[in-house]
Amino acid sequence: MNLDFKKRISVEEVEEGKSLQPKFDNRGLIPVITVDINNNEILMHGYMNEEAFKLSMKSLEAHYWSRSRNCIWKKGETSGLKQIVKEIKIDDDQDCIIFKVELGGLKASCHVGYKSCFYRKLTMKNKEYTNILEFTENEKVFDPKKIYGDTPNPTKL
Amino acid sequence: MNLDFKKRISVEEVEEGKSLQPKFDNRGLIPVITVDINNNEILMHGYMNEEAFKLSMKSLEAHYWSRSRNCIWKKGETSGLKQIVKEIKIDDDQDCIIFKVELGGLKASCHVGYKSCFYRKLTMKNKEYTNILEFTENEKVFDPKKIYGDTPNPTKL
Repeated sequence: MNLDFKKRISVEEVEEGKSLQPKFDNRGLIPVITVDINNNEILMHGYMNEEAFKLSMKSLEAHYWSRSRNCIWKKGETSGLKQIVKEIKIDDDQDCIIFKVELGGLKASCHVGYKSCFYRKLTMKNKEYTNILEFTENEKVFDPKKIYGDTPNPTKL
Repeated sequence: MNLDFKKRISVEEVEEGKSLQPKFDNRGLIPVITVDINNNEILMHGYMNEEAFKLSMKSLEAHYWSRSRNCIWKKGETSGLKQIVKEIKIDDDQDCIIFKVELGGLKASCHVGYKSCFYRKLTMKNKEYTNILEFTENEKVFDPKKIYGDTPNPTKL
Protein backbone atom coordinates (compact mmCIF):
# COMPACT_ATOMS: atom_id res chain seq x y z
CA MET A 1 0.00 0.00 0.00
CA ASN A 2 1.21 3.52 -0.74
CA LEU A 3 2.13 5.08 2.59
CA ASP A 4 3.51 8.37 1.30
CA PHE A 5 2.60 11.30 3.50
CA LYS A 6 0.94 14.34 1.90
CA LYS A 7 2.74 17.64 2.16
CA ARG A 8 1.54 19.97 4.92
CA ILE A 9 0.05 22.99 3.15
CA SER A 10 -2.95 23.97 5.27
CA VAL A 11 -3.29 24.34 9.07
CA GLU A 12 -6.98 23.51 8.74
CA GLU A 13 -6.22 20.27 6.89
CA VAL A 14 -3.53 19.31 9.43
CA GLU A 15 -5.85 19.93 12.39
CA GLU A 16 -9.27 18.98 11.07
CA GLY A 17 -8.55 16.77 8.07
CA LYS A 18 -8.47 13.03 7.53
CA SER A 19 -5.08 12.91 5.86
CA LEU A 20 -2.01 11.72 7.77
CA GLN A 21 0.57 14.52 7.47
CA PRO A 22 3.10 13.90 10.24
CA LYS A 23 5.68 16.54 11.10
CA PHE A 24 9.22 15.33 11.67
CA ASP A 25 11.54 17.70 13.56
CA ASN A 26 14.87 19.04 12.32
CA ARG A 27 16.47 15.68 13.24
CA GLY A 28 13.81 13.92 11.12
CA LEU A 29 12.13 12.50 14.24
CA ILE A 30 8.63 12.45 15.71
CA PRO A 31 7.95 11.55 19.39
CA VAL A 32 5.89 8.44 20.20
CA ILE A 33 4.11 7.74 23.48
CA THR A 34 3.67 4.01 23.99
CA VAL A 35 0.70 2.89 26.07
CA ASP A 36 -0.45 -0.51 27.35
CA ILE A 37 -3.78 -1.01 25.55
CA ASN A 38 -5.11 -3.06 28.47
CA ASN A 39 -5.01 -0.32 31.11
CA ASN A 40 -3.81 2.89 29.40
CA GLU A 41 -0.57 2.88 31.40
CA ILE A 42 2.20 4.86 29.70
CA LEU A 43 5.11 2.50 29.08
CA MET A 44 7.71 4.62 27.31
CA HIS A 45 8.41 7.75 25.28
CA GLY A 46 10.46 7.23 22.14
CA TYR A 47 11.09 8.64 18.70
CA MET A 48 10.59 7.45 15.12
CA ASN A 49 12.00 8.60 11.84
CA GLU A 50 9.86 8.25 8.72
CA GLU A 51 11.19 4.76 7.96
CA ALA A 52 10.50 3.47 11.51
CA PHE A 53 6.97 4.89 11.33
CA LYS A 54 6.24 3.19 8.00
CA LEU A 55 7.73 -0.11 9.23
CA SER A 56 5.45 0.07 12.29
CA MET A 57 2.43 0.85 10.10
CA LYS A 58 3.12 -2.08 7.77
CA SER A 59 4.27 -4.75 10.24
CA LEU A 60 2.09 -3.79 13.25
CA GLU A 61 5.25 -4.24 15.35
CA ALA A 62 6.66 -1.13 17.05
CA HIS A 63 9.82 0.24 15.43
CA TYR A 64 11.63 3.26 16.85
CA TRP A 65 14.69 5.37 16.10
CA SER A 66 17.41 4.85 18.68
CA ARG A 67 19.07 8.21 19.36
CA SER A 68 21.86 6.53 21.35
CA ARG A 69 22.66 3.88 18.70
CA ASN A 70 21.67 6.06 15.74
CA CYS A 71 19.70 3.32 13.97
CA ILE A 72 16.23 1.84 13.51
CA TRP A 73 15.32 -0.20 16.55
CA LYS A 74 12.72 -2.94 16.27
CA LYS A 75 11.44 -3.20 19.81
CA GLY A 76 12.08 -6.65 21.26
CA GLU A 77 14.68 -7.76 18.73
CA THR A 78 17.32 -8.29 21.44
CA SER A 79 15.10 -8.66 24.49
CA GLY A 80 12.00 -10.39 23.18
CA LEU A 81 9.97 -7.51 24.68
CA LYS A 82 7.95 -7.02 21.48
CA GLN A 83 5.10 -4.57 21.11
CA ILE A 84 2.15 -5.31 18.82
CA VAL A 85 0.60 -2.00 17.74
CA LYS A 86 -3.17 -2.25 18.21
CA GLU A 87 -4.00 1.45 17.69
CA ILE A 88 -2.15 4.52 16.41
CA LYS A 89 -3.32 8.04 17.31
CA ILE A 90 -1.96 11.41 16.23
CA ASP A 91 -2.35 14.84 17.79
CA ASP A 92 -3.87 18.10 16.57
CA ASP A 93 -0.80 19.50 14.79
CA GLN A 94 0.38 16.00 13.83
CA ASP A 95 3.77 16.20 15.53
CA CYS A 96 3.25 13.43 18.11
CA ILE A 97 2.06 9.81 17.91
CA ILE A 98 0.49 7.40 20.41
CA PHE A 99 1.01 3.64 20.03
CA LYS A 100 -1.45 1.52 22.01
CA VAL A 101 0.30 -1.82 22.27
CA GLU A 102 -0.06 -5.38 23.43
CA LEU A 103 3.15 -6.38 25.21
CA GLY A 104 4.93 -9.57 24.17
CA GLY A 105 7.55 -11.63 25.96
CA LEU A 106 7.84 -10.84 29.64
CA LYS A 107 5.08 -8.20 29.40
CA ALA A 108 7.48 -5.42 30.28
CA SER A 109 8.92 -2.55 28.30
CA CYS A 110 11.75 -0.81 30.18
CA HIS A 111 15.42 -1.70 29.68
CA VAL A 112 16.06 -1.20 33.42
CA GLY A 113 13.78 -4.17 34.15
CA TYR A 114 10.54 -2.48 35.16
CA LYS A 115 7.23 -2.79 33.31
CA SER A 116 7.05 0.93 32.48
CA CYS A 117 9.92 3.39 32.10
CA PHE A 118 7.94 5.70 34.41
CA TYR A 119 8.61 3.81 37.66
CA ARG A 120 9.34 6.88 39.81
CA LYS A 121 7.34 9.91 40.87
CA LEU A 122 8.26 13.19 42.53
CA THR A 123 7.51 13.37 46.24
CA MET A 124 5.71 16.33 47.80
CA LYS A 125 6.51 18.45 50.84
CA ASN A 126 4.65 21.52 52.11
CA LYS A 127 2.28 21.38 49.11
CA GLU A 128 5.13 21.62 46.58
CA TYR A 129 6.89 18.97 44.53
CA THR A 130 10.47 18.23 45.66
CA ASN A 131 13.53 16.93 43.81
CA ILE A 132 13.35 13.63 45.72
CA LEU A 133 11.92 10.64 43.84
CA GLU A 134 9.87 7.72 45.11
CA PHE A 135 9.56 4.36 43.33
CA THR A 136 6.07 3.42 42.15
CA GLU A 137 7.06 -0.06 40.94
CA ASN A 138 8.46 -2.11 43.79
CA GLU A 139 9.87 -5.04 41.86
CA LYS A 140 11.58 -5.48 38.53
CA VAL A 141 9.86 -7.78 36.06
CA PHE A 142 13.22 -9.09 34.80
CA ASP A 143 16.96 -8.90 35.38
CA PRO A 144 18.35 -6.69 32.59
CA LYS A 145 21.77 -8.40 32.75
CA LYS A 146 20.16 -11.71 31.83
CA ILE A 147 18.17 -10.20 28.96
CA TYR A 148 20.61 -7.70 27.48
CA GLY A 149 24.00 -9.16 28.49
CA ASP A 150 26.77 -6.83 27.42
CA THR A 151 24.65 -4.63 25.13
CA PRO A 152 25.59 -0.97 25.83
CA ASN A 153 23.15 0.86 28.13
CA PRO A 154 21.07 3.34 26.05
CA THR A 155 20.90 5.86 28.94
CA LYS A 156 23.27 8.77 28.31
CA LEU A 157 24.37 11.40 30.83
CA MET B 1 12.34 25.17 48.88
CA ASN B 2 15.59 24.59 46.99
CA LEU B 3 14.65 23.01 43.67
CA ASP B 4 18.08 22.92 42.10
CA PHE B 5 18.70 19.77 40.08
CA LYS B 6 21.79 17.70 40.82
CA LYS B 7 24.30 17.23 38.02
CA ARG B 8 24.05 13.94 36.10
CA ILE B 9 27.28 12.09 36.83
CA SER B 10 26.24 8.42 37.12
CA VAL B 11 23.95 6.33 34.89
CA GLU B 12 23.10 4.15 37.89
CA GLU B 13 22.04 7.19 39.93
CA VAL B 14 19.98 8.55 37.02
CA GLU B 15 18.19 5.21 36.50
CA GLU B 16 17.96 3.75 39.98
CA GLY B 17 18.39 6.73 42.30
CA LYS B 18 15.99 8.93 44.21
CA SER B 19 17.42 12.23 43.04
CA LEU B 20 15.65 14.27 40.37
CA GLN B 21 18.22 14.89 37.60
CA PRO B 22 16.20 15.85 34.51
CA LYS B 23 17.88 16.03 31.12
CA PHE B 24 17.02 19.02 28.96
CA ASP B 25 17.80 18.69 25.24
CA ASN B 26 20.01 21.03 23.19
CA ARG B 27 17.11 23.51 23.05
CA GLY B 28 16.89 23.38 26.87
CA LEU B 29 13.58 21.50 26.72
CA ILE B 30 12.15 18.28 28.17
CA PRO B 31 8.98 16.63 26.78
CA VAL B 32 5.90 16.33 29.01
CA ILE B 33 3.00 13.94 28.51
CA THR B 34 -0.15 15.30 30.13
CA VAL B 35 -2.71 12.77 31.33
CA ASP B 36 -6.21 13.09 32.81
CA ILE B 37 -5.77 11.66 36.31
CA ASN B 38 -9.38 10.46 36.34
CA ASN B 39 -9.09 7.96 33.47
CA ASN B 40 -5.44 7.96 32.31
CA GLU B 41 -6.41 9.48 28.95
CA ILE B 42 -3.48 11.26 27.27
CA LEU B 43 -4.48 14.88 26.76
CA MET B 44 -1.44 16.51 25.17
CA HIS B 45 2.31 16.32 24.57
CA GLY B 46 4.24 19.49 25.35
CA TYR B 47 7.64 20.75 26.39
CA MET B 48 9.08 22.56 29.42
CA ASN B 49 12.28 24.45 29.98
CA GLU B 50 13.83 24.40 33.44
CA GLU B 51 11.90 27.49 34.54
CA ALA B 52 8.53 26.10 33.44
CA PHE B 53 9.27 22.84 35.25
CA LYS B 54 10.14 24.63 38.49
CA LEU B 55 7.07 26.87 38.22
CA SER B 56 4.90 23.75 37.79
CA MET B 57 6.56 22.08 40.80
CA LYS B 58 6.03 25.12 43.02
CA SER B 59 2.56 26.25 41.94
CA LEU B 60 1.02 22.82 41.11
CA GLU B 61 -0.34 24.46 37.95
CA ALA B 62 1.00 23.18 34.62
CA HIS B 63 3.45 25.52 32.91
CA TYR B 64 4.96 24.69 29.52
CA TRP B 65 7.37 26.21 27.03
CA SER B 66 5.59 27.36 23.89
CA ARG B 67 7.82 26.59 20.90
CA SER B 68 5.58 28.64 18.59
CA ARG B 69 5.47 31.72 20.82
CA ASN B 70 8.94 31.19 22.34
CA CYS B 71 7.85 31.90 25.89
CA ILE B 72 6.66 30.28 29.13
CA TRP B 73 3.03 29.33 28.80
CA LYS B 74 0.89 28.93 31.88
CA LYS B 75 -1.81 26.56 30.69
CA GLY B 76 -5.24 28.16 30.90
CA GLU B 77 -4.08 31.75 31.19
CA THR B 78 -5.95 32.78 28.04
CA SER B 79 -8.50 29.99 27.81
CA GLY B 80 -9.29 29.14 31.43
CA LEU B 81 -8.40 25.52 30.60
CA LYS B 82 -6.16 25.19 33.66
CA GLN B 83 -4.43 21.99 34.71
CA ILE B 84 -3.79 21.18 38.37
CA VAL B 85 -0.82 18.83 38.59
CA LYS B 86 -1.75 15.97 40.92
CA GLU B 87 1.23 13.70 40.17
CA ILE B 88 4.56 14.06 38.37
CA LYS B 89 6.43 11.01 37.05
CA ILE B 90 9.81 10.75 35.33
CA ASP B 91 11.26 8.04 33.14
CA ASP B 92 14.31 5.78 33.45
CA ASP B 93 16.89 8.13 31.88
CA GLN B 94 15.05 11.21 33.23
CA ASP B 95 14.48 12.85 29.86
CA CYS B 96 10.66 12.75 29.85
CA ILE B 97 7.98 13.82 32.34
CA ILE B 98 4.35 12.79 32.93
CA PHE B 99 1.90 15.24 34.46
CA LYS B 100 -1.28 13.66 35.82
CA VAL B 101 -3.72 16.53 35.96
CA GLU B 102 -7.18 17.57 37.06
CA LEU B 103 -8.71 19.68 34.29
CA GLY B 104 -10.16 23.08 35.14
CA GLY B 105 -12.58 25.28 33.24
CA LEU B 106 -14.39 23.49 30.44
CA LYS B 107 -12.61 20.20 31.28
CA ALA B 108 -10.84 20.16 27.93
CA SER B 109 -7.26 20.63 26.92
CA CYS B 110 -6.88 21.01 23.15
CA HIS B 111 -6.78 24.39 21.39
CA VAL B 112 -8.82 22.98 18.48
CA GLY B 113 -11.76 22.51 20.87
CA TYR B 114 -11.56 18.80 21.65
CA LYS B 115 -10.95 17.31 25.11
CA SER B 116 -7.67 15.64 24.11
CA CYS B 117 -5.26 16.67 21.35
CA PHE B 118 -5.31 13.01 20.25
CA TYR B 119 -8.78 13.05 18.65
CA ARG B 120 -7.86 11.07 15.53
CA LYS B 121 -6.55 7.58 14.86
CA LEU B 122 -5.12 5.88 11.80
CA THR B 123 -7.53 3.60 9.97
CA MET B 124 -6.58 0.07 8.91
CA LYS B 125 -6.93 -1.75 5.61
CA ASN B 126 -5.71 -5.26 4.73
CA LYS B 127 -4.11 -5.62 8.18
CA GLU B 128 -1.93 -2.53 7.73
CA TYR B 129 -2.34 1.03 8.97
CA THR B 130 -3.20 3.54 6.25
CA ASN B 131 -2.58 7.28 5.91
CA ILE B 132 -6.31 8.01 6.31
CA LEU B 133 -7.44 9.30 9.71
CA GLU B 134 -10.70 8.73 11.57
CA PHE B 135 -12.04 10.99 14.33
CA THR B 136 -12.36 9.41 17.79
CA GLU B 137 -14.01 12.45 19.40
CA ASN B 138 -17.24 13.28 17.64
CA GLU B 139 -17.98 16.66 19.16
CA LYS B 140 -15.90 19.61 20.23
CA VAL B 141 -16.15 20.60 23.89
CA PHE B 142 -15.90 24.30 23.00
CA ASP B 143 -15.71 26.71 20.08
CA PRO B 144 -12.06 27.85 19.88
CA LYS B 145 -13.03 31.17 18.25
CA LYS B 146 -15.04 32.08 21.34
CA ILE B 147 -12.25 31.10 23.75
CA TYR B 148 -9.15 32.28 21.92
CA GLY B 149 -10.51 35.09 19.72
CA ASP B 150 -7.75 36.42 17.49
CA THR B 151 -4.84 34.70 19.33
CA PRO B 152 -2.50 33.25 16.68
CA ASN B 153 -2.94 29.50 16.10
CA PRO B 154 0.02 27.60 17.63
CA THR B 155 -0.06 24.93 14.89
CA LYS B 156 2.79 25.47 12.42
CA LEU B 157 3.19 23.83 9.01
